[in-house]
Amino acid sequence: MIKKVLIANRGEIASRIIRTCAKMGIHTVAVFSEADQKAPFVSMADESYLLGPSRVNESYLHVDKIISIAKEAGVDAIHPGYGFLSENGQFAMKCKESGILFIGPTEEVMGKMGSKIEARKAMQAAGVPVVPGTDGALSDSDEAIKIAKDIGYPIMLKASAGGGGIGMQVVTSDDELVKAFANNSKRAQTFFGDGAMFMEKKLENARHIEIQLLADQHGNVVHLFERECSIQRRNQKVIEEAPSSFISQSTRDAMGEASVKAAKALGYINAGTIEFLVDDHEKFYFLEMNTRIQVEHPVTEEITGLDIVEKQIDIANGKALDIDQNTLEIDGHAIEVRIYAEDPETFFPSPGHINTFNIPTGENIRNEVAVTNNYDVTPFYDPMIAKLIVKGSNRDEAISMLKDALLQYKIEGIKTNIPMLLKTIEHEQFKKGNTLTSFVQDYYLPLIKTK
Amino acid sequence: MIKKVLIANRGEIASRIIRTCAKMGIHTVAVFSEADQKAPFVSMADESYLLGPSRVNESYLHVDKIISIAKEAGVDAIHPGYGFLSENGQFAMKCKESGILFIGPTEEVMGKMGSKIEARKAMQAAGVPVVPGTDGALSDSDEAIKIAKDIGYPIMLKASAGGGGIGMQVVTSDDELVKAFANNSKRAQTFFGDGAMFMEKKLENARHIEIQLLADQHGNVVHLFERECSIQRRNQKVIEEAPSSFISQSTRDAMGEASVKAAKALGYINAGTIEFLVDDHEKFYFLEMNTRIQVEHPVTEEITGLDIVEKQIDIANGKALDIDQNTLEIDGHAIEVRIYAEDPETFFPSPGHINTFNIPTGENIRNEVAVTNNYDVTPFYDPMIAKLIVKGSNRDEAISMLKDALLQYKIEGIKTNIPMLLKTIEHEQFKKGNTLTSFVQDYYLPLIKTK
Repeated sequence: MIKKVLIANRGEIASRIIRTCAKMGIHTVAVFSEADQKAPFVSMADESYLLGPSRVNESYLHVDKIISIAKEAGVDAIHPGYGFLSENGQFAMKCKESGILFIGPTEEVMGKMGSKIEARKAMQAAGVPVVPGTDGALSDSDEAIKIAKDIGYPIMLKASAGGGGIGMQVVTSDDELVKAFANNSKRAQTFFGDGAMFMEKKLENARHIEIQLLADQHGNVVHLFERECSIQRRNQKVIEEAPSSFISQSTRDAMGEASVKAAKALGYINAGTIEFLVDDHEKFYFLEMNTRIQVEHPVTEEITGLDIVEKQIDIANGKALDIDQNTLEIDGHAIEVRIYAEDPETFFPSPGHINTFNIPTGENIRNEVAVTNNYDVTPFYDPMIAKLIVKGSNRDEAISMLKDALLQYKIEGIKTNIPMLLKTIEHEQFKKGNTLTSFVQDYYLPLIKTK
Repeated sequence: MIKKVLIANRGEIASRIIRTCAKMGIHTVAVFSEADQKAPFVSMADESYLLGPSRVNESYLHVDKIISIAKEAGVDAIHPGYGFLSENGQFAMKCKESGILFIGPTEEVMGKMGSKIEARKAMQAAGVPVVPGTDGALSDSDEAIKIAKDIGYPIMLKASAGGGGIGMQVVTSDDELVKAFANNSKRAQTFFGDGAMFMEKKLENARHIEIQLLADQHGNVVHLFERECSIQRRNQKVIEEAPSSFISQSTRDAMGEASVKAAKALGYINAGTIEFLVDDHEKFYFLEMNTRIQVEHPVTEEITGLDIVEKQIDIANGKALDIDQNTLEIDGHAIEVRIYAEDPETFFPSPGHINTFNIPTGENIRNEVAVTNNYDVTPFYDPMIAKLIVKGSNRDEAISMLKDALLQYKIEGIKTNIPMLLKTIEHEQFKKGNTLTSFVQDYYLPLIKTK
């Protein structure tokens, strides 16, 4: 049984994990960089250790330092949160070699899902629909042109090892493809040490909808329904909801069943998420699998009443899942918005000193915060400073509550994206549920430009 | 249908009511005193009006001013919150005369329940057990001595019109009774213009447990289970829980049924609460009825998933209750603590300037706040500055979460009762559920004195 956990992360997710550990009577160890010395998660943990300088390579990505602190503190397990080392198979392996439980899936599955080409193959083998495209790396641009002819432009060229939009480009013609192939392959080689490229059809009018999974060590897998995460800026989610107002119950069931089947085929263990693109006709296509807890997990917790972090720890402890897929029900509608320290028009980060940080309060309002009053937001990490989650009995009610709650924020000293969030949730197209991945491009940016 | 509501109150309950109105698409009008100009509820409302000076007689208790603002703003209804004018039958009547709905019961029921002697009679008539004692006013101390002999010392001498502990005294002998009768009758005459006294047996090892009721205009009445509110200081509740860990299911059912029966007999309409004292053998005795929403209503909302303010408005609109007593279920365990600006040892108010006000965040944590960062707590009103409500899957979990959440508070500039709350919830007797009304006297104060 896990009695002491090191949280190899920072910010709101570190606080989030510490709270569930406290509830379960598990001692917690925080690790923090110089920039984070005054962060709330540091004082919330039972023990905390300085990792090193502010830059991530010397702190939150420094595998050896983290493992040596874990040994020194005598923890049984490490929770990696999201981002940083959470999908790093080598880190998981080093934990195992040091006799420390890694709260997550096996390094084999993490490795497989970390390669976009491998993941595609595995999903196809499990019978999960994938976006039309190549199943292996493209040998050169000539092969790329031949395949593009088959599936039809526009296509999306992607680096197999890619992430954060690097090595990724929409291509609409043969000429463009030749140049794009050379450039992106070179960039991917530079960034990831792997220039392998593949191609997928670019879906039009697509929604990003994902399925939350829980899988124990005894072969039991359940899904906790879907999250709709189409509202994105700079390829990063900003607003997430559960359930989706777009898909029908039969699509929900089909996506859930396909995801459970895939997880079983992979021998997946712990919490994970399969992301899909869903087209106008509710056809869904595998996008990628995240082998960790996600930023947007709270909306699923709100509609199911489950604590996903608690389930992750139970699973790591070898407990069998006590959830019956047939009795799971969706209760109400939850929406999460991510509050970023950024310019609401350009989306550029806006670090600085927060003088005042008043957050919304009340029934069915959940705050997950990374900062406090009188606090410095540094430029070293992702500029997300808080998440706000509201739960209503239906989507309209949740939107009303969200607007009311957003208006309650009083954040002084830095710019935030709250004006962008308000404009988005008040937009007719958002209210109608027309949340395509192109929403920000189609509906938000024009509002800014015509101002 | 109610389209615009004036909230005749302040602080956290004003914000609470405004939020539900916003969710329901109802416009809100706040009224505020000079001391409250910067209070959060003032800016949350759609409109707000200055009532007058800080003292309550010139602001929150000034019936004519409030009604004249209500007319000027064109509201359909007034929500009185708790305290202030919420149990003032004359105010309810004046609302009616001005063509404004009073969101609460009829003035007749309010009047009846406002008199402790009348209320006792009505409950006895409805078959609800009352504490052994007198059914009418005592004519003099001779009669008092005769009756005290019957029911046995210790007895509680009470002013019929009493409140806030005034005119109330525990008496253990004939001699004491003679003096107490004279003194308290005189005090009651001075404070309430009514010197009528009555007497009840002082129950030993008693718990304060109350039943939340909802009653519509069509004769439907349901109860939303109980709240355990025994932890009190200066006769005021500090910690409230739902459900009670002490009573059995059959006692819960019996208390609920008795309360529903009483509400039906009274022709009660809207939300109300019947308070009971419960002895060691789970025998329950009527204490009083509160004909309004209560401070501790959130714990009931958390375990039932209902919005009691929304139900109050629905009932005032003439809607029939859509709740079936037989399908209502208790989900989890909720605990509320009241955060007071007061000395944690003497319980004296501690007004002043709040420099920092950081509140707990996370899943299943609900904050109801009256103040913000950089805010002046004035001495004019009740010193409650916030409420914290946590919900766990069971009582032990809720207590762990509560401790963790209380440790997250950072309030600088004033004293608060948070140290007292922490000492209480960490006490073995509290953990065991030995929450008698004498808890603070028996277990908390000795901790302070031996320090």
